[in-house]
Amino acid sequence: MKIIVDAMGGDYAPAVVIQGAIAAVKEYNIDVVLVGDEERISALLKKNKYRGANISVCPAQEVIEMHEPAAASIRKKRKSSIVVGLNLVKEGKGDAFFSAGNTGAVVCAGTLSLDLLPGVERPGIGMVIPTLKGISLIIDVGANIDPKPNHLLQYGIMADAYLRHILNRPEPKVGLLNIGEEESKGTEFVKETHELLSQSSLNFIGNVEGKDLFSGKCDGIICDGFVGNIALKVSESVGEAFQEFLKRYIKSSPLALLGVALLRNSFRKFKKDTDYSEYGGAPLFGVNGVVIIGHGRSNVNAIKNAIRVAKEEVERKFNEKILEAINPAK
Amino acid sequence: MKIIVDAMGGDYAPAVVIQGAIAAVKEYNIDVVLVGDEERISALLKKNKYRGANISVCPAQEVIEMHEPAAASIRKKRKSSIVVGLNLVKEGKGDAFFSAGNTGAVVCAGTLSLDLLPGVERPGIGMVIPTLKGISLIIDVGANIDPKPNHLLQYGIMADAYLRHILNRPEPKVGLLNIGEEESKGTEFVKETHELLSQSSLNFIGNVEGKDLFSGKCDGIICDGFVGNIALKVSESVGEAFQEFLKRYIKSSPLALLGVALLRNSFRKFKKDTDYSEYGGAPLFGVNGVVIIGHGRSNVNAIKNAIRVAKEEVERKFNEKILEAINPAK
Repeated sequence: MKIIVDAMGGDYAPAVVIQGAIAAVKEYNIDVVLVGDEERISALLKKNKYRGANISVCPAQEVIEMHEPAAASIRKKRKSSIVVGLNLVKEGKGDAFFSAGNTGAVVCAGTLSLDLLPGVERPGIGMVIPTLKGISLIIDVGANIDPKPNHLLQYGIMADAYLRHILNRPEPKVGLLNIGEEESKGTEFVKETHELLSQSSLNFIGNVEGKDLFSGKCDGIICDGFVGNIALKVSESVGEAFQEFLKRYIKSSPLALLGVALLRNSFRKFKKDTDYSEYGGAPLFGVNGVVIIGHGRSNVNAIKNAIRVAKEEVERKFNEKILEAINPAK
Repeated sequence: MKIIVDAMGGDYAPAVVIQGAIAAVKEYNIDVVLVGDEERISALLKKNKYRGANISVCPAQEVIEMHEPAAASIRKKRKSSIVVGLNLVKEGKGDAFFSAGNTGAVVCAGTLSLDLLPGVERPGIGMVIPTLKGISLIIDVGANIDPKPNHLLQYGIMADAYLRHILNRPEPKVGLLNIGEEESKGTEFVKETHELLSQSSLNFIGNVEGKDLFSGKCDGIICDGFVGNIALKVSESVGEAFQEFLKRYIKSSPLALLGVALLRNSFRKFKKDTDYSEYGGAPLFGVNGVVIIGHGRSNVNAIKNAIRVAKEEVERKFNEKILEAINPAK
């Protein structure tokens, strides 16, 4: 199996991406093609003392920066690592694509280059998040910010398939993110979506609220990409603010510093239990090929695990499951 | 000054509401009218040994429960504490209304009974949140879940007025909650809102992301009520999940327990710095009267401070400032 990796994508690219790829080929039985600046990649492979045959390099002269507008950048930069890498998958020269680069550009280029799976109307980004009961999947977190109710129904169906076939949940519960639990709550859009989900064969538990995001009340949380993006980033914000507040108080107290030292193990466990890098990247659902998107801040572990997720999707023929679920035999 | 208080609203009503009202009349130079079940209120006033002349009771036979549908409940329950209390303000028998009850019902009844301020198109709920730089105001957090761009412009104008005249910020910075900082980001709705805010005389700093919610990047954060509600509830969820996670680790370690003990002061400071009950309730902006909404979980301190906020809005003639700002002299 050959995973195509955007060597130039992410805040710490290419160095960290290459280290993650090396870790992945050592741990999993796969080949990786690193796409990007050939000279820099070769130098970094040498620097990391990688001499195996499982990593090859495909040159790409351009890089789409993190904040370039998605559609315009992929039109202009046909030789970018994202466009070149996705074309390799399209041409059958690779089984999956991973990038921790510009998310919008990956969504856009992924959809254009690989096309959507027959029957799927829009792509969606799924994100695995830690909860008090393990993990949940939230979809969409930013691919489709102005969706139709039917797109969210399809996200529900794809989330169900992912939860069953990749995350090994036998009867996944799916909830709709809303401002209240009652059926009557929310915008017209959300109410229509609620109805579609209710009529579907999904194990739909109804509306869930923002406060349920990390409670583990359901396995799959469905929302539009705008709300999903805000929800995720707000949760990051709370964590960062909390750390910053605590730092301030602790600075001025030696006893508090000792307290933190004694809690180091607990904090470490917390960090491990909630470490996004363990879950790898976020799958781009609905495109006709396997595409995994990494957080811009991905570290070596996150890159390695994202490549593992790509491998699992390919191995378990995840897109065939989606096709069956979206287009059930009549 | 006379503040009308819904004695029956909130998870711990009427006991906690009455304690909060007693604390308020002792601390501030005001009168309070408690609206609700006369017998229970009188018994509770006696139980709390209140014998002053600053609190009176106005009977209301019905109670709108927390999860009743807003519009239907205020139509059906004309004798509820919310409807009766707001009518007192309408008839000039009180200067402001406070309730920690059913938010939707307060918004609905407040708008119907008091009407909107001339020029204001929709009411909005503002919420003061703690940030790393002090406090910020986020509006709307649930009154208007499917707004037009102009409603958000008006929220910006009302937030600016509140920040200047109630929170004493001389040059408040206003930001628009979006999925990216670039002007080109977001839905058509958000882009149109961005343009309106840019053309306004507000100190508009552009888009802010979910991760900026608690950073204190701007003083006023504008968003639609659906997104605002989800954002707030997600942030509560993160805090609760964090506590729950830590509890689990700590249980199994005596050293960690000692660590927590040593950090007690820091946690206490954190709790104080981020204690919503210090900021009182959430003002319902745009109605022709002063209406403050409390969190369902309001404690005595929150009730007391919400009554203080109501008093400040009346004293500082806040609605006149809104009128001037929304309808500038030509």
